[in-house]
Amino acid sequence: MKTVLILNGPNLNLLGQREPATYGHQTLDDVRQLCEAACQQHQLRADFRQSNHEGVLLDWIHEAGAAQAAGQLAGVILNAGAYTHTSIALADAIKGVGLRVIELHISNVHARESFRHHSYLSAVAAGVMFGFGTHGYALAIAAMAQLSHSGGHP
Amino acid sequence: MKTVLILNGPNLNLLGQREPATYGHQTLDDVRQLCEAACQQHQLRADFRQSNHEGVLLDWIHEAGAAQAAGQLAGVILNAGAYTHTSIALADAIKGVGLRVIELHISNVHARESFRHHSYLSAVAAGVMFGFGTHGYALAIAAMAQLSHSGGHP
Amino acid sequence: MKTVLILNGPNLNLLGQREPATYGHQTLDDVRQLCEAACQQHQLRADFRQSNHEGVLLDWIHEAGAAQAAGQLAGVILNAGAYTHTSIALADAIKGVGLRVIELHISNVHARESFRHHSYLSAVAAGVMFGFGTHGYALAIAAMAQLSHSGGHP
Amino acid sequence: MKTVLILNGPNLNLLGQREPATYGHQTLDDVRQLCEAACQQHQLRADFRQSNHEGVLLDWIHEAGAAQAAGQLAGVILNAGAYTHTSIALADAIKGVGLRVIELHISNVHARESFRHHSYLSAVAAGVMFGFGTHGYALAIAAMAQLSHSGGHP
Amino acid sequence: MKTVLILNGPNLNLLGQREPATYGHQTLDDVRQLCEAACQQHQLRADFRQSNHEGVLLDWIHEAGAAQAAGQLAGVILNAGAYTHTSIALADAIKGVGLRVIELHISNVHARESFRHHSYLSAVAAGVMFGFGTHGYALAIAAMAQLSHSGGHP
Amino acid sequence: MKTVLILNGPNLNLLGQREPATYGHQTLDDVRQLCEAACQQHQLRADFRQSNHEGVLLDWIHEAGAAQAAGQLAGVILNAGAYTHTSIALADAIKGVGLRVIELHISNVHARESFRHHSYLSAVAAGVMFGFGTHGYALAIAAMAQLSHSGGHP
Amino acid sequence: MKTVLILNGPNLNLLGQREPATYGHQTLDDVRQLCEAACQQHQLRADFRQSNHEGVLLDWIHEAGAAQAAGQLAGVILNAGAYTHTSIALADAIKGVGLRVIELHISNVHARESFRHHSYLSAVAAGVMFGFGTHGYALAIAAMAQLSHSGGHP
Amino acid sequence: MKTVLILNGPNLNLLGQREPATYGHQTLDDVRQLCEAACQQHQLRADFRQSNHEGVLLDWIHEAGAAQAAGQLAGVILNAGAYTHTSIALADAIKGVGLRVIELHISNVHARESFRHHSYLSAVAAGVMFGFGTHGYALAIAAMAQLSHSGGHP
Amino acid sequence: MKTVLILNGPNLNLLGQREPATYGHQTLDDVRQLCEAACQQHQLRADFRQSNHEGVLLDWIHEAGAAQAAGQLAGVILNAGAYTHTSIALADAIKGVGLRVIELHISNVHARESFRHHSYLSAVAAGVMFGFGTHGYALAIAAMAQLSHSGGHP
Amino acid sequence: MKTVLILNGPNLNLLGQREPATYGHQTLDDVRQLCEAACQQHQLRADFRQSNHEGVLLDWIHEAGAAQAAGQLAGVILNAGAYTHTSIALADAIKGVGLRVIELHISNVHARESFRHHSYLSAVAAGVMFGFGTHGYALAIAAMAQLSHSGGHP
Amino acid sequence: MKTVLILNGPNLNLLGQREPATYGHQTLDDVRQLCEAACQQHQLRADFRQSNHEGVLLDWIHEAGAAQAAGQLAGVILNAGAYTHTSIALADAIKGVGLRVIELHISNVHARESFRHHSYLSAVAAGVMFGFGTHGYALAIAAMAQLSHSGGHP
Amino acid sequence: MKTVLILNGPNLNLLGQREPATYGHQTLDDVRQLCEAACQQHQLRADFRQSNHEGVLLDWIHEAGAAQAAGQLAGVILNAGAYTHTSIALADAIKGVGLRVIELHISNVHARESFRHHSYLSAVAAGVMFGFGTHGYALAIAAMAQLSHSGGHP
Repeated sequence: MKTVLILNGPNLNLLGQREPATYGHQTLDDVRQLCEAACQQHQLRADFRQSNHEGVLLDWIHEAGAAQAAGQLAGVILNAGAYTHTSIALADAIKGVGLRVIELHISNVHARESFRHHSYLSAVAAGVMFGFGTHGYALAIAAMAQLSHSGGHP
Repeated sequence: MKTVLILNGPNLNLLGQREPATYGHQTLDDVRQLCEAACQQHQLRADFRQSNHEGVLLDWIHEAGAAQAAGQLAGVILNAGAYTHTSIALADAIKGVGLRVIELHISNVHARESFRHHSYLSAVAAGVMFGFGTHGYALAIAAMAQLSHSGGHP
Repeated sequence: MKTVLILNGPNLNLLGQREPATYGHQTLDDVRQLCEAACQQHQLRADFRQSNHEGVLLDWIHEAGAAQAAGQLAGVILNAGAYTHTSIALADAIKGVGLRVIELHISNVHARESFRHHSYLSAVAAGVMFGFGTHGYALAIAAMAQLSHSGGHP
Repeated sequence: MKTVLILNGPNLNLLGQREPATYGHQTLDDVRQLCEAACQQHQLRADFRQSNHEGVLLDWIHEAGAAQAAGQLAGVILNAGAYTHTSIALADAIKGVGLRVIELHISNVHARESFRHHSYLSAVAAGVMFGFGTHGYALAIAAMAQLSHSGGHP
Repeated sequence: MKTVLILNGPNLNLLGQREPATYGHQTLDDVRQLCEAACQQHQLRADFRQSNHEGVLLDWIHEAGAAQAAGQLAGVILNAGAYTHTSIALADAIKGVGLRVIELHISNVHARESFRHHSYLSAVAAGVMFGFGTHGYALAIAAMAQLSHSGGHP
Repeated sequence: MKTVLILNGPNLNLLGQREPATYGHQTLDDVRQLCEAACQQHQLRADFRQSNHEGVLLDWIHEAGAAQAAGQLAGVILNAGAYTHTSIALADAIKGVGLRVIELHISNVHARESFRHHSYLSAVAAGVMFGFGTHGYALAIAAMAQLSHSGGHP
Repeated sequence: MKTVLILNGPNLNLLGQREPATYGHQTLDDVRQLCEAACQQHQLRADFRQSNHEGVLLDWIHEAGAAQAAGQLAGVILNAGAYTHTSIALADAIKGVGLRVIELHISNVHARESFRHHSYLSAVAAGVMFGFGTHGYALAIAAMAQLSHSGGHP
Repeated sequence: MKTVLILNGPNLNLLGQREPATYGHQTLDDVRQLCEAACQQHQLRADFRQSNHEGVLLDWIHEAGAAQAAGQLAGVILNAGAYTHTSIALADAIKGVGLRVIELHISNVHARESFRHHSYLSAVAAGVMFGFGTHGYALAIAAMAQLSHSGGHP
Repeated sequence: MKTVLILNGPNLNLLGQREPATYGHQTLDDVRQLCEAACQQHQLRADFRQSNHEGVLLDWIHEAGAAQAAGQLAGVILNAGAYTHTSIALADAIKGVGLRVIELHISNVHARESFRHHSYLSAVAAGVMFGFGTHGYALAIAAMAQLSHSGGHP
Repeated sequence: MKTVLILNGPNLNLLGQREPATYGHQTLDDVRQLCEAACQQHQLRADFRQSNHEGVLLDWIHEAGAAQAAGQLAGVILNAGAYTHTSIALADAIKGVGLRVIELHISNVHARESFRHHSYLSAVAAGVMFGFGTHGYALAIAAMAQLSHSGGHP
Repeated sequence: MKTVLILNGPNLNLLGQREPATYGHQTLDDVRQLCEAACQQHQLRADFRQSNHEGVLLDWIHEAGAAQAAGQLAGVILNAGAYTHTSIALADAIKGVGLRVIELHISNVHARESFRHHSYLSAVAAGVMFGFGTHGYALAIAAMAQLSHSGGHP
Repeated sequence: MKTVLILNGPNLNLLGQREPATYGHQTLDDVRQLCEAACQQHQLRADFRQSNHEGVLLDWIHEAGAAQAAGQLAGVILNAGAYTHTSIALADAIKGVGLRVIELHISNVHARESFRHHSYLSAVAAGVMFGFGTHGYALAIAAMAQLSHSGGHP
């Protein structure tokens, strides 16, 4: 049984409190449970984390690269929050360890400020999803199950 | 039992022949069958079409708007191909009829030429997915089932 | 008695349904009647059409060019909708047949998204009007009567 | 009987002398008479002014705001000349006093230098007209009569 | 004996009428005859078409791709008119079917408005020619004969 | 006892009437009184003026330069309104006479349209404040008292 | 008695050593004392911190959001140093917790390199101040006292 | 004996006081005398003026247009100061009255801030000179004498 | 019998050695022979030269201008290599002597780096051809024969 | 014997694993040994560190500034990885402590994506080197020995 | 008696032939005579040269730098033609040898194509003149006489 | 014993005279001696040249390509001066002959004007160094020795 690492970046600990019109009313803990349930459906194990520190996210991606190489990890679902738009380092890390990543956003980032329309991560992700609310996590887990099974990207 | 209208834009009739490294080996007919199967799983009916004509796509979206208003349509999954990047008319139509649309691309458009990074459609879509190959159609149908059920967007 | 050809582009068939806050509650059929009445006031005949197809609009402009050359047409009032901002072909057609065109928009396009601030058509139009709601059609017919009478542009 | 204030900005006192290929042969006094006649047709009173001073135009717009609030003014027809493209102050004034303004240009500004394609005023105007020569003043008065009657903008 | 498909896009049906200073006095029918004569010289058959509809041009390119794959077509000479500058769909079609295309313009597009300096088609064309008037069609046919004979691009 | 010259630019005479959601309900006369009180607290004399004329503001800055050189003026608090974003002449005047200026805006200009994010004045100002409503005038007077006392800028 | 949290970002620990021509001779400890004195004047308690880590600043802002909601915090004075210009995450955090923030810079950032003219924080700040040297901290505390008292922003 | 009108725009009354490193130590009165002497050498009469008001400069240019048409004026030497870079109205006035203008700057504007590199006036000027200090006025008068004598521009 | 001057710019002496995937295996001497043969077919004389020096190319164009004026030269086929994209001087020379020039590139420059998409020469050339490999020289000679015979450009 | 501090930024711990085509096969530990050997040759001591945390890199630079001021440090060789292109904070730190820094990249960053062509660090570095693989560390140590000996920068 | 070196760049040997509407009918030899006469008036010796080679112009500027340092040269009048807009090397040379240069253009370059509005030379020139036709050479010699006499720039 | 060709571009003959604050006091002859000494240390022979002519530099690079192919040349150290930023031809030459080039600048070009931040050469160079003064030549020779020995690039 492989693990899916679900990484949440800056400010996602505020979920449920922060701008509910944009992000909905579920808390990050609700999302964790939603992910655990979805993983179970696909014979996967959820490892769910959050950090506001770019460096910690980098460390976790490096760790995931090793786990994927060892056949223990299906891939990473990455909601990098605001670092999506500013962090070349995260993109370099994903490419550097050859990680299978699905980029995820809860809101429709392309319907918001123009600085949210550019992502450094998309070019190195296997696939991208946004605008599906917290339900997007379940969709991403389904997508990861399929990708991991078919050996897709990378 | 509601319908999901799956619209495919220019050049998607070439699927399976056109640049398999980018688009895979499945033909559009394979995708139609994949969509019918996925819809069945979610108690939905698939209406699957393709056109190279922007005007025809506009007519279909207008028709879909009426069907959604009449409670017959769950929404539209729209792979508008190259018109994604050039057609303000398609975006106006979606907004004009108040349609629930999931924007879909087979390839990871953000990993390709920069003129494919901008979509006129994203801002009026409920959600966006790309890079999951033809499997993305099944994911989009699952997302549509959930959105339609919860009454999400619009 | 000369004809005024009133051409409406993509999504204008939705008038009255589509975003009434922006476009008002009158339907395209109401506008047709408004135009017929306004034309009658100026001893002109209204020929009122709509299409979502860029190619059909091009064909109609070519037809209008011949009619104007034959002295049967006063000119064209063109509400090209979203094609205003993307169609070099329409501008080329107007210039190519030497047509007298008044560009019209129902809403104030310069008070909306920045991609609506550029028009390929304005440079080849005799005059431009926007923001007057459906009443703008009557104003444009009055303007066309005057232009046609004085032999203005081209 | 309400007043229409017709404000003409920098260099419009040169009308008839200045670049007749662009602006025609009528003088500003001819235009004043044309406006008085057009206003009479619509049971309106014309108040016709010109200034080369941005500050004077601002003062007049402030004065107009008070008159409109007092129910004495139908609105302002504003041909701001070159200040159209450079004056944020004029736009602020219009918005600040909540004035009903029709922006007018004699020539087709979008068929000229690119720096004339941007207007700070359009976004705060009720409607915009250009390219109809001095006849545009009559069209604008007709539009103002209709707008004032229907209570449109603002 | 292979066919050369000569496709003409929007407004080219106006040839001979439209802006003769730019496009010359020959009609599209004159060009057809010129092409038939030139093809004969090179043991090729001319198939000469025109459409104002982007979708029709796409359909024809798909058809040509099949014919080229079947060894019946030498390639396509494409004068896409204004769609040259706006249609990503045409470029995708050419690349998608792996077609040998020579991009052609009658006028020197780089000596005209700057929006005519960019072509979506050039990057997927075998070669490009412009500025030689209608004689360019004969030059393009000569080039196609040579390319087809040597098996060049693609 | 030194004077603080408080200069208000275009449209600030509308304060209290103009867009209260943005500018609050206090009138310019209320602000004058607030400034007089604040100056008194710091042993300063308030000279409070407003003009819609860029040229008048320039004349006043020249006058202030002479007064500061003569040791009679602590400095200028300048709310230049829309001229902030368009007037190189005001910036040249401030630099030319070597004036101590605090740039002030009532609203948070960086939370508004992007053309309000650039100020020609900031680079020549001692300090800048915005977003504090009319209370900002009191803060600016406190800042000026401190700057004048310590001989800061210039 | 409410607290004012005064957060200092990267490199501000160097104050007094780093480029005194730009930042003056006071150390960060001097500023801490200045802040404590200023807070006392306004019946506020100063909580003064510095970190070079973006993630730590984010954590502190989250903590402040909770404290403000609990009525214990007047707001945050934020001198985010270089992160002002690069951190979307900080702006998201401020907006996410609904924090009352005054953005502060010691130097006049608009008189320096152009990359310092853009701030991601200004749009979500209550007010902004820069160029007043370390005295700006006292001004910001006075402003915060007033804002907190009047219940201003947010 | 024809007149040369020498117009000086905003802040030029500060000459001799303002930034002597850039503008030198001569006052505007010194320049007036220099101009009178230079004119005398060329059998011309100097009319030397300065204003900080854009509207006044416009009025003077209109007046000059009439004088030139009446054969009384050789032309205008225009040092428009900061309005050079912001005033479309001044350029329109010059073109509108068909005036012979030499654009002049005391300093080398192209060796200063980039916003001083663009001039709205240059395109409508007969010739341009900058960087020669106040001696530039004498050179411009010599140039005007020659232009006026040869009937050059316009 | 007129001459065609075939000018080759920087690095074209490397032909056959330099990047054969882009430029093919023929040497410049092969191209010279190809040109001589093609000229003979059209009763023209080939004068074939290469230089790495922009100044030498300018001198040759000046010389060609005189020869064309004397009726000895049909025109110039110019493959200016990298100078195409950087030399305003070459464009000025062509326009200055009124030369009939066909711009030629061996590779499809619009399918390469974006800095190769702009040509200073195209706007002053009679026609442009690229992407036909060394065979393009023969096509250009055929085009020149036709242009020279019909007296086209200039 | 002075120390050279060799700082490695995000993802450099992956060296040897990450994209060997770009970065080679040596691990970071190999580089550490290479640096120790090179330092020994120049009578210097190597202090070799890596972190994925921007804040940690800032802390180390501050520490280095103190050591250099105390005469214990020759300078810093900084391979900041992706932070090179996004961190104004690192540049401010270097300038703030007046540090002698050599900026180093293993790959030729100017031959890669355009977002790697801009470095915030270069302007504050003594010198810059890139493209020499891991051998660049030895070259940088040689350069530092020379700079430190001659007292160069700063 | 000092020398004035008058350098003419690419294509200026065509003077009198090239585009007389822009450059007039005088040949370069006429200009040489005009310069010799003007120099004589100011007790200067004219050394008048032209080259199409950027390298030759660089060599001449180096030579001039030495002559000026030796007190034999008043300065250089440089009409660099198209190299004005493309040659950083010429600007570096002027700055490198500390030369007194007046930049000259015969036509009004700011009334022509936008690529002629930028000059690499202006920032290092003492003064700039354009639009005065060949008479500009005489004005520039007068300016040089004055600059050299007063010891101005550099 | 292989040769290192050290090529110096425009204005480098001025070394020691030109802007010593930027370039230091050593002459080009001093650098030649420095290079000869450094080469000797690495069993290499120095061939040291300078030219102000782009064409001559191109010729030398072609010559070097042949020598490298013949095993006689280790590579080229190229300080192309201002041509670095403007010459596509030099980059094409380097790529065309497949030359091993180290790009060198004496000053830190990224700490100077922004037009010096872009190099056409970097993308085709093996490595790049700048900011090390004339000592950079010795570092580059050491780097070349290592590259040549290991057979690196190309």
